[in-house]
Amino acid sequence: MRRTPLLQTDLHESLVIMAECLQVTGSFKSRGACNAVACLGDRAMETTGVVTHSSGNHATALSYAAQTFRLPALMVIPATASPNKVEATRRLGAEVITHGITFDNREQVAEEIAVEQGLHLIHTYDDWDIVHGGATTGLEILEDASTATCLVAPVGGGGQISGLALSVQSFCPTAAVIGVEPELADDAARSFSTGQLQTLTADPPTIAEGVKSKAIGERNFEVMVRRRLVADMVTVSEQELVETVCLAWQTLRLTVEPTGALGLAWLSGRIHRATPQQPTVVLLSGGNFEADQMARILTGGDQ
Amino acid sequence: MRRTPLLQTDLHESLVIMAECLQVTGSFKSRGACNAVACLGDRAMETTGVVTHSSGNHATALSYAAQTFRLPALMVIPATASPNKVEATRRLGAEVITHGITFDNREQVAEEIAVEQGLHLIHTYDDWDIVHGGATTGLEILEDASTATCLVAPVGGGGQISGLALSVQSFCPTAAVIGVEPELADDAARSFSTGQLQTLTADPPTIAEGVKSKAIGERNFEVMVRRRLVADMVTVSEQELVETVCLAWQTLRLTVEPTGALGLAWLSGRIHRATPQQPTVVLLSGGNFEADQMARILTGGDQ
Repeated sequence: MRRTPLLQTDLHESLVIMAECLQVTGSFKSRGACNAVACLGDRAMETTGVVTHSSGNHATALSYAAQTFRLPALMVIPATASPNKVEATRRLGAEVITHGITFDNREQVAEEIAVEQGLHLIHTYDDWDIVHGGATTGLEILEDASTATCLVAPVGGGGQISGLALSVQSFCPTAAVIGVEPELADDAARSFSTGQLQTLTADPPTIAEGVKSKAIGERNFEVMVRRRLVADMVTVSEQELVETVCLAWQTLRLTVEPTGALGLAWLSGRIHRATPQQPTVVLLSGGNFEADQMARILTGGDQ
Repeated sequence: MRRTPLLQTDLHESLVIMAECLQVTGSFKSRGACNAVACLGDRAMETTGVVTHSSGNHATALSYAAQTFRLPALMVIPATASPNKVEATRRLGAEVITHGITFDNREQVAEEIAVEQGLHLIHTYDDWDIVHGGATTGLEILEDASTATCLVAPVGGGGQISGLALSVQSFCPTAAVIGVEPELADDAARSFSTGQLQTLTADPPTIAEGVKSKAIGERNFEVMVRRRLVADMVTVSEQELVETVCLAWQTLRLTVEPTGALGLAWLSGRIHRATPQQPTVVLLSGGNFEADQMARILTGGDQ
């Protein structure tokens, strides 16, 4: 892994960016994937490799981790996933299956293949090793920005934010961890407010591809909702997301995919509450998406 | 100033990026501008402010420096300059003159205004304080990547590279500093190979707006050519520049303007010569340009 820099920007003096788009494979997912493969330990000898279902960044990250540990990797990716992400996965030596794979059947197909072929299934977020890998972001933030009082991160299945919340609340319980979702995929926010696990009934039409999971995982629900280690869950509109991807390109000079922009999208209008002595840290989770989509966003055609 | 991070990337293990696009105002120019204004010292009391002619990044940087030191600033910018850069300058409190200003008359107009209004003219590159400000990049690179044997940077008027060469050659004379220009604006490369100052006869039609200066400055010529502190001068095509802006967006996850991409454009095909023990450092000098231009580049329409 890289120690990604905490960045000051021209946007606001109280804002600190954790640029996980600069992480190996371009997203925070490498932290969890490498930890999960490392934690296989002796079990790695008993499997013929690893398998997962993913809409993209986890697949690339797990391929990287498997390549690093010299294990075969098989990726079950929906046929509609970003070609860049699929190509990046193949370049890292993984086998990719997209034929007949949908948002709805990918989990089941991956589980069946795992049993058939003796592969070890590494879930995208509902796995303690994945959560603990993501938790390293919190440790690094506390080391580099120890006076931070508020940490903001995207929420999909909850792997990243539950890790972040675990490490931050362990060492700095006064800091608030806030999760951000698209309004169009607000299952985690509803789970948080109702105290009951809520699920999406259909593929949400959000531009934030990385947070289309139907529901947060059991382990993530445990951390975020039951143990209340997340202080609040909020949502942003598609318009705010698109504007924030532009803002990140122009003012932060970073490539941030729509999912990665969730935290900043929510924070943009609220940053005036922070002070330089008590910075707000926003985690930009990834920077992988298609050039033609970015071109549409930059010219206002994807709003 | 910020201590911009030296970044490892997914592009090549031996490549280290100095991301000056993450610098205050989005380019390395802030280093020289702040040093030049700081060095005014008591002379600041005798002027009514500072003035310069610039196609963009120096204007923004000097506006920032003047605002920081509470001095008025006047910018003489060609009417064809990037609206984003002009707007950024105005937001920083500077007065901007673009009416009737061209690539050819901007220097003379700025000099006349300086005399008329008692302003202190701070040249874009032919100024030792500007050069010495830029030299801080070399010191930071040597501190953070002390085993680097090759440093690659863009060349326009020569302010950045002469500063870089001065500091690197002072402390690490075995390292090679290489300057990169567009083929379409190769005056510095010709000055270097002939040993005589060469000038462009017309506004060069390169996409790299920041290196359209007609010739390198006298002081820059002294450092680069007479004292041979630059090891080589090379050129890249417009096609290579455009492809590198895309590469930076997709693989480095950074916003790099075409000028800022010059060093990486030259290096992309040659990086296999480097080893992780002897990294090559490439300076990405800036990240300010228009969203519609980036959209055209991403969709292959500006090649």
